[in-house]
Amino acid sequence: MTAPTPTQLAHAIRFLAIDAIVRATEGHQGVPLGMAEIATALYTRHLKFNPADPTWPDRDRVVLSNGHGSMLLWALNYLTGYEKISLDEIRRFRELGAHCEGHPEFDPSKGVEVTTGPLGQGIANAFGMAIAEASQRARFGAGLVDHFTYAFVGDGCLQEGIGQEMISLAGHLRLGRLVLLWDDNQITDDGSTALSISEDVAERFRVAGWHVAEVDGHDIDAVSAAMDAARQDPRPSLLACRTVIARGLARLQGQRGGHSARLYPEDADAARQLLDWPHPPFETPAPVLHAWRTAGTRSLPAHAAWTARRDALPAVERAEFDRTLAGELPAGWRETLHAYKREALAAQRMQDAPGGILISADINDRLTDVLPERLVGCADLEAPTSHKRRLHAFTADDPSGRYIHCGVREHLMGAMANGMAAHGGVIPLAVTYLAFSDYERPAMRMAALMGLPVKFVFSHDSIGVGKNGPTHQPVEILAALRSMPNMLVLRPADAVEAAECWEIALEHRSGPVSLVFARQALPTVRRPSATGDDSDDSDDSDARDNRSRRGGYVLAEAEGGPRAATLLATGSEVAIALKARDLLQAEGVPTAVVSMPCCERFDAQDADYRRSVLGRGAVRVAIEAAVRFGWDRYLGEDGGFVGMTSFGASGPADALYEKFGITAAAAAATVRQLLAQRA
Amino acid sequence: MTAPTPTQLAHAIRFLAIDAIVRATEGHQGVPLGMAEIATALYTRHLKFNPADPTWPDRDRVVLSNGHGSMLLWALNYLTGYEKISLDEIRRFRELGAHCEGHPEFDPSKGVEVTTGPLGQGIANAFGMAIAEASQRARFGAGLVDHFTYAFVGDGCLQEGIGQEMISLAGHLRLGRLVLLWDDNQITDDGSTALSISEDVAERFRVAGWHVAEVDGHDIDAVSAAMDAARQDPRPSLLACRTVIARGLARLQGQRGGHSARLYPEDADAARQLLDWPHPPFETPAPVLHAWRTAGTRSLPAHAAWTARRDALPAVERAEFDRTLAGELPAGWRETLHAYKREALAAQRMQDAPGGILISADINDRLTDVLPERLVGCADLEAPTSHKRRLHAFTADDPSGRYIHCGVREHLMGAMANGMAAHGGVIPLAVTYLAFSDYERPAMRMAALMGLPVKFVFSHDSIGVGKNGPTHQPVEILAALRSMPNMLVLRPADAVEAAECWEIALEHRSGPVSLVFARQALPTVRRPSATGDDSDDSDDSDARDNRSRRGGYVLAEAEGGPRAATLLATGSEVAIALKARDLLQAEGVPTAVVSMPCCERFDAQDADYRRSVLGRGAVRVAIEAAVRFGWDRYLGEDGGFVGMTSFGASGPADALYEKFGITAAAAAATVRQLLAQRA
Repeated sequence: MTAPTPTQLAHAIRFLAIDAIVRATEGHQGVPLGMAEIATALYTRHLKFNPADPTWPDRDRVVLSNGHGSMLLWALNYLTGYEKISLDEIRRFRELGAHCEGHPEFDPSKGVEVTTGPLGQGIANAFGMAIAEASQRARFGAGLVDHFTYAFVGDGCLQEGIGQEMISLAGHLRLGRLVLLWDDNQITDDGSTALSISEDVAERFRVAGWHVAEVDGHDIDAVSAAMDAARQDPRPSLLACRTVIARGLARLQGQRGGHSARLYPEDADAARQLLDWPHPPFETPAPVLHAWRTAGTRSLPAHAAWTARRDALPAVERAEFDRTLAGELPAGWRETLHAYKREALAAQRMQDAPGGILISADINDRLTDVLPERLVGCADLEAPTSHKRRLHAFTADDPSGRYIHCGVREHLMGAMANGMAAHGGVIPLAVTYLAFSDYERPAMRMAALMGLPVKFVFSHDSIGVGKNGPTHQPVEILAALRSMPNMLVLRPADAVEAAECWEIALEHRSGPVSLVFARQALPTVRRPSATGDDSDDSDDSDARDNRSRRGGYVLAEAEGGPRAATLLATGSEVAIALKARDLLQAEGVPTAVVSMPCCERFDAQDADYRRSVLGRGAVRVAIEAAVRFGWDRYLGEDGGFVGMTSFGASGPADALYEKFGITAAAAAATVRQLLAQRA
Repeated sequence: MTAPTPTQLAHAIRFLAIDAIVRATEGHQGVPLGMAEIATALYTRHLKFNPADPTWPDRDRVVLSNGHGSMLLWALNYLTGYEKISLDEIRRFRELGAHCEGHPEFDPSKGVEVTTGPLGQGIANAFGMAIAEASQRARFGAGLVDHFTYAFVGDGCLQEGIGQEMISLAGHLRLGRLVLLWDDNQITDDGSTALSISEDVAERFRVAGWHVAEVDGHDIDAVSAAMDAARQDPRPSLLACRTVIARGLARLQGQRGGHSARLYPEDADAARQLLDWPHPPFETPAPVLHAWRTAGTRSLPAHAAWTARRDALPAVERAEFDRTLAGELPAGWRETLHAYKREALAAQRMQDAPGGILISADINDRLTDVLPERLVGCADLEAPTSHKRRLHAFTADDPSGRYIHCGVREHLMGAMANGMAAHGGVIPLAVTYLAFSDYERPAMRMAALMGLPVKFVFSHDSIGVGKNGPTHQPVEILAALRSMPNMLVLRPADAVEAAECWEIALEHRSGPVSLVFARQALPTVRRPSATGDDSDDSDDSDARDNRSRRGGYVLAEAEGGPRAATLLATGSEVAIALKARDLLQAEGVPTAVVSMPCCERFDAQDADYRRSVLGRGAVRVAIEAAVRFGWDRYLGEDGGFVGMTSFGASGPADALYEKFGITAAAAAATVRQLLAQRA
C-alpha cells in the first residue's frame, strides 16, 4: 500500500466499527459508516487536538450528539492515538468495564467531552461549550482561549425540542465557533425521515441566523472546504452533509436497517469485498494507521505555542486562569458567605424577612465580586428570581456578560449548563421555577450521570406560590429530584441555611446540586449559638460552623424531659415546625425540631448521628409542603406526615396552607394522635 | 349607548380583566389587554360554540396556551354566557375555590378545554385535539365531526422546544383545522424578545409548511379576514398578530411591566379615561353585554343542525359515536384480555418467554380489532417497542391511520396525547423508552393534574437494557413517576400481570397510567390457581380474577411454618424473588413472594389487607432494579433492599444484574442477615 487516500482513512473507521459491532453482536453502524468521511475531514485537516494531552484546555471540543454511533468516536480516538482507546478496548466494545461503551461516557482523557445518548442533549452541551469558550476568551484573551466546538448530529437531535431551542438561541447569540456536522441520511429508527418531518431543515437553520453549507458528506474535499468556510463565518454553522446511512454494507446501506440492524461476519466480508479492504478484522494497515497517527500530531505546534503563551503569562493571571480551569474556588468566597451568614444571624429577620429566592439572589450578588467565573443562565424569569442584579447580559456583541437570557427554554438552559461545566473554566447556574424543573430534568439527569458541578437554582418551590395555581406549585418535584442518584437537593429554611447551602453547593464538585428556594418570605429560624457571647470569636464560630453540612440537625432540642416527639421539616416548613413545637412544649410534650436541608447528606452520616438527630424513642412527624414519598425512611413504623397528598390549588398561599392542613396546629395534632396511639 | 362597536366589545374584555386583576392584587394583564381584539374577532365572528351546551362534541376547541392570561378566557366565558363563569366568579378571580383560577383549569363545562400554564403545553394539546378531530372525522364523517382548534399563544410557547416540535409535526401532518393566534407583542417576562430571539418566527412556521398571515392584532376586521383565510387553507395556520402588550394601560402598555406588573385602581381609572369607558368596575354596559351574549348564541343553528344529524344516525352508529365520546369501552375488550391471560396461564412460557414490551405489543395487537378508538403515538421507536403491528400510519393524506409516527419528539407526544384525551372520542397511547420519559414528564404531570386517561407506555425499564449503557437505563424513574399524584404506575411481572395491568389501565378513567415494561424476557411467574381443576370454570375464574387490581398480592406463600420473610418485587425482579424464595425455603426459611405491580393501588387497600400481604412479623426485603427511594414505607424499621444505588453501566444485562448485586443469592443473603440481626 502506498500513501493511503483520504477515502482509505475513512474506511479504517468503517471497518473498525463493523468489526467491533459484529463482535459485540449489537451496536449502531449507521453513524460511523455514514459519517466516516466527515470525521476524516475534521480530524485530519481541521481539528485542534492532541491525543497525547487530551485535556489540553484550548483543544477544539468534539461532541458526538448522535451518541449511539459511539464506534465513530472510538475508532477516531484509537486511530489518532488516545492511549486509553487501545485496539483491545475496541475489541471489548460494549463489554462491561470497557472504555468503549455503548454510548460515549464523559471522560476527556479518552476523548469524550460529554456523555451522549438521549437525543438533543449533545448539541445543547456543545452550545454550552461554545458559550464557555466565548466567555473565557472575553476574559483571558484569544491567546489562551480560542477554539471551536464541533458536534456530530443526526436527525433525531434536530427533531427534539431541545435541539430546536439550541438552534434558535445559538443563532441569536451568533456563536461563530459552533459547527454542527449533520448526518443528513434521511433515515431514522422508524425508517424514512419523511414519516415524521417534511420541513427544509437547512432553511430552518438559516431562518435562525446560521451559516449553512450543503455538501456531499462522502466527498472529503467538499466537506473540508465547507469546514473552512464555517470557521471563517461569524455565525454558527451547519454543515448539512448528505450521506448514505451504513455506507459500505450493501445489504443495509441507505435503508432503515442501516441504523442498527444486527451485523454478521458475512456483512463484514461483503463490505471488505465492496470497498476493497482486504485486511483482517480489527487490523488497520500500517500506512493507514501511520497516517491517522500523524493526524493525531497535527496540532503539536499549536499546542506548543499555546503552552508557551500560557507559561509566559504574568504569575497572577496564570494562576487565575489555571484556577478557573481546575474548578478551584478563589480566596474570599467562603468568607463572603460567612459574612452574609453572620449578618443574617445578627439580624434575625422575622416579619420583614425576604422571600427565599431573594435571599439566594442577595447571596449571589455578594458572590459577584469574588467569583468572576460564575455564569448565570435564566429562562425568562429574571424579575421574580432576581439573580441578575449587577451582572450584565452575555450577548452576541458582548460575550463578557455573565448573565444569559435563555428565553423560555428551560431544557436548553440545563443542557447548556452541563456543556459549560464539562468545558471547564466557568461555574454555571441555571435558574427557573421549581415547577419547570421537569422541563430541565433530562439535562439534570445527565449532569448527575456525568458528575458535573452544575448549580440548578429553583424558586417558587411549593404551594407557597399561591394564586398562580397547581401548574406552578411543585408537590412531587422534591421527591423526584431526591430520587436521582448523585443529585444533592438543598432546601434551606432561612437566610442562615441559605448561606450554608450555597457553601455546600460551591464546595461540591462531584455532581450537580439543586438549590430549592421558597417564593414566600423565610423568617430566620436559626439562632446564634447558646454557648456564644457577643465576642467576635463566637460570632465567627457560628459563621464557620456549617450545620447544614450534615444534611439534618437538631435546630431546637426538646425541653423539660426526654424527647417525646421529633418534628422534621425543610425550607419554609421549618418555621411551622417551630410553632408546632411551641404548642406541644406548652402542653408539656418535650419536642425537638430537626431541620433537614439536605436528605442526601443526612443519609451519608453515621448511624449514631442519624439516630441521635431523629430521636430513637420519639414519635416522628415530618412536615413538608410536598408529598410524603421518600420520607418514610425517617419516620419509623408509626411516624406521621403533614404535607400534600394531591396537586395544589389556585388561591392565596396562606389559604392553601390552611386548606391542605400544613399548619402548626395540624402538626401538633398529629403528634398528639401518635402519642395517644402509643399510650 | 347605541349598538356597540367591535372595539367596545374588546374593551369589555379589557375592563373585566383590569378590574379583576386590580381586585386580586395580582394577575397577568398583558394577554387579555393585548389580545382583546383577536378574541373578539374569534368569538363574535368565527367560533363554533354554545355556552348553553359547553361540551357539545363538535364545538370548536379553544386553548389558551399562554395560560397566565386567564382573565382573557374568564372574561370571554362570562360575556358569552357560560353559566359557571358568573360576574361573581369574575370578582373572585384567583380566590381559593373560585372558578376563575390564576391559570385555567380543565373543565369543559366552564369553557376550559385544557389546563394551561407551563408554556408550550397548550399548543401541543391543541395539536393533539386537531389530530383527534381528524381521526374522528375520518371515522364518523364530517357530518358529526367537523371543527377547528384555535389556540392563543405567546412568545414563550413558541420558544419552548415542545412548541417547536409541534410546529414541525403539525406542518408535516398538514393539520388544516389547527389555527394559532400569536400574540406578537415583542415582550416576554424579561423584557424585549430581542433579549433572547432574533429569528423571523413567521418564517420559521412557513419553513415547516404552515400558512402564515401577518396582521395588526388590534384591527378586528383584519384579524377576522385572516381567520377566514386560515379556515380555507389546507395547511395549519399561524395568525401572527402584531399587538401592544397591556394595551390601554398608559403606564405599562408596550412595556415589560405590561406582562404582570401590579395594577392599582389608578391604573384602572386612567385606562377608563384613555379608552373612553365611563362605566364602574365590573360593569359591562347592557348593550355591550347583550352583543356578547348574542355572540354566544351565534352557533345555535349549527348546534341544532348537528344535533339533528346525530339523532338521525342509525342506532348502531350513533351508539358507537356516543360510546367513544363518553369514553366508555366496547363490548369484548375485557374478554380479549381475559383470553390472552388464559393462554398465558396455560402456556407458562419460561425459556421462550417474550420481552416484556413485546408482551404489551401482543396484547395491543389483540385490542386492535375491539378498540378502534385507540390511537398510538410513538417517538421513533416503532421496531423495538412494536406497538404498530397491524395499524397503519396517520398521515396528512390518510387520517384514518391509528399509528402516529411522532418523530424523535417525546415531549410533544405526551402533550399531544393529553390533547387527544381532553378532546375525547379516542384513547391515546404514547410509547417510548422509560429512560426518555423524563422528556415527556412535564406533559405527564399535566395529564395527572387534569385527570386525563392517557396511557403512557414505556419499554426498556431498567439496567436490563444492557449494553446501551446508563443513559438508557432508568434507575430513578420509577420512583419519580410514583411520586406524582394521580399517576398509576404499573410494572407487570409477566404476561399474566401484563394483561391484568392493561385491564386496569383501560378501566382507569380518572387519570393517566404509566405502563412500564422490561426489554428483557419475562418468564411466566403466575401459576393457575391451586384450587382449580382443568374445567372451563376454573380457567375462567383465573382469567377473571385480576390479582394485580389490589396493587400487590402474595404470589407465593411461605411454606413449612409461619412466614419468616417477605420478598417484595415488581416486574422483571419478581422472577428473581421467586428464585431467592427457593433458596430460602430449601434452607428452611418460610418465605413469601409479594408481587407489587402497582404501589398506588396497594396503598389504597385497607390496612388489614396490606398487613396480611406484607407479613406482620416477617422481615421484608424489596427487590427492584431501581433505587430504594419510596420503598421504605413497606419495609419497616429493619427492612432490606436489593436494587440500585447509582446509575447503571454499559454491559450485557446479565452481567449488570451481577455487578449491581440484584440476584437471588443477594436477596437471600439479605434475608439471612436481617434474620440474624433479629435473633
